[in-house]
Amino acid sequence: MHQPDDLRRLADRFLAGLPFAGELGKLEGALRYSLLAGGKRIRPVLCLATGEALGRDAEELLPAACSLELVHTFSLVHDDLPALDDDDLRRGQPSAHVRFGEDVAILAGDALLAEAFRLALRYPSPDVARELAEATLGMIGGQYLDVTTDGEFDPEGLRRLHALKTGRLLRASVTTATAVAGLAESERAPWRVFGEEVGVLFQIVDDILDATGTAEELGKTPGKDEAAGKVTYVSLHGLEHARELADEARARVLQQLASLSGDTTVLAAIVDTIRDRRA
Amino acid sequence: MHQPDDLRRLADRFLAGLPFAGELGKLEGALRYSLLAGGKRIRPVLCLATGEALGRDAEELLPAACSLELVHTFSLVHDDLPALDDDDLRRGQPSAHVRFGEDVAILAGDALLAEAFRLALRYPSPDVARELAEATLGMIGGQYLDVTTDGEFDPEGLRRLHALKTGRLLRASVTTATAVAGLAESERAPWRVFGEEVGVLFQIVDDILDATGTAEELGKTPGKDEAAGKVTYVSLHGLEHARELADEARARVLQQLASLSGDTTVLAAIVDTIRDRRA
Repeated sequence: MHQPDDLRRLADRFLAGLPFAGELGKLEGALRYSLLAGGKRIRPVLCLATGEALGRDAEELLPAACSLELVHTFSLVHDDLPALDDDDLRRGQPSAHVRFGEDVAILAGDALLAEAFRLALRYPSPDVARELAEATLGMIGGQYLDVTTDGEFDPEGLRRLHALKTGRLLRASVTTATAVAGLAESERAPWRVFGEEVGVLFQIVDDILDATGTAEELGKTPGKDEAAGKVTYVSLHGLEHARELADEARARVLQQLASLSGDTTVLAAIVDTIRDRRA
Repeated sequence: MHQPDDLRRLADRFLAGLPFAGELGKLEGALRYSLLAGGKRIRPVLCLATGEALGRDAEELLPAACSLELVHTFSLVHDDLPALDDDDLRRGQPSAHVRFGEDVAILAGDALLAEAFRLALRYPSPDVARELAEATLGMIGGQYLDVTTDGEFDPEGLRRLHALKTGRLLRASVTTATAVAGLAESERAPWRVFGEEVGVLFQIVDDILDATGTAEELGKTPGKDEAAGKVTYVSLHGLEHARELADEARARVLQQLASLSGDTTVLAAIVDTIRDRRA
């Protein structure tokens, strides 16, 4: 079993060496720019750790794990566009549309999504790609809610928004690993719940970071959500209560984890990393 | 065997009844708006006819056939955006971004692409989805060439541009059908060539239409390519020679078709429909 930092390095190495479709020509540069700009690789790491907990080799899991990072990066490239969140800074660098122009950024996002599927389709079974498609659609549905209903969320609405926008891809980080491991649908259910709870924890911590972090720490513009009048866990509950909610979410994640079979010590370490980012 | 008009109706009916991911919420309206605005359904029709020529039922082919139309529609929605072709009219109606706003149009395009994969992934084998991913990436590579190298194409460059931008998806209309039919890679090769030649014919006719059609006839803004200083078969060769090239392309397609096994009479009829649009 690898430790989280080792898993991140494995994902980084795989992504750095990933061949893209030759037909993309020089557009490839825009894909690599956004994909290799850093990032915590939380989705690939979670996928790899889940797969290892289920007794699979990291090598076998890497295409699934990194397909999630491609979908995540696609969503960042498009979300940063002027028509959406209009963010000029991402992972500490100019956003794709600032660096390459809006037209190229739109196409680069599209290509990252298609490459994600190409990667997920390396497996003999279509199962991993199916999980990816479902998660991508949920994520897009969440982004649509976010852009069309600014500031109108109650606590339940906020939870639903995040369950889609960030939660589905984090859940898929777990379920794609169960797909690679060939688990039956009934065996996947508790893992799916675990993945969902990780998503909730992740989002609460993200909202706290947005309210308290600096651009340097975050690698993106802080206070963006608040400035845009968006409802966050912090705006809705206050910083102190948001921190309590993060602790409660962490407790739920670890409880769910304890109910799962396999050696989940690395997964527990990842959960703590998420909680401790600086919430 | 169905005639082309019957195949189009089958595709239309399938698309009209296609369920989208519930998580998309009201974004679904934007997908349906673009998807059901009409269109010749040439890609689904070509896929269905190829599959029927190979002895398969239309019913079995419809998910593959319509996944191509979803990718095509995704590409139209994104290509029409202000940052790309900036076209306000599509299939005789306001473009998606005019009707719903740029933010929703970007998300709707993304969702159409993800739904295309979900549809192609209905099959037990990942083969159809793989063909779709390859074709989508080729198409995006062509669009990238188009936006970054305006007006710098020689005849060879123009052919390459079109082989990617429109040709790959038309070729995939043939190859996804061979995938559904379970043809081995070696058996697919001549079908692939046929699909490629159809793509060339289609593009020449499209360029002629852009130069000679009215908005009403085309359902989109005519003369757009010329106004944008884009190289087309017409701008490069003149209208008369472009018409000769269309005839030559048609002859090549039919010659290739004659070399294929199975009953290809419907496919020949489709080729004539493409040629006769009004070239």
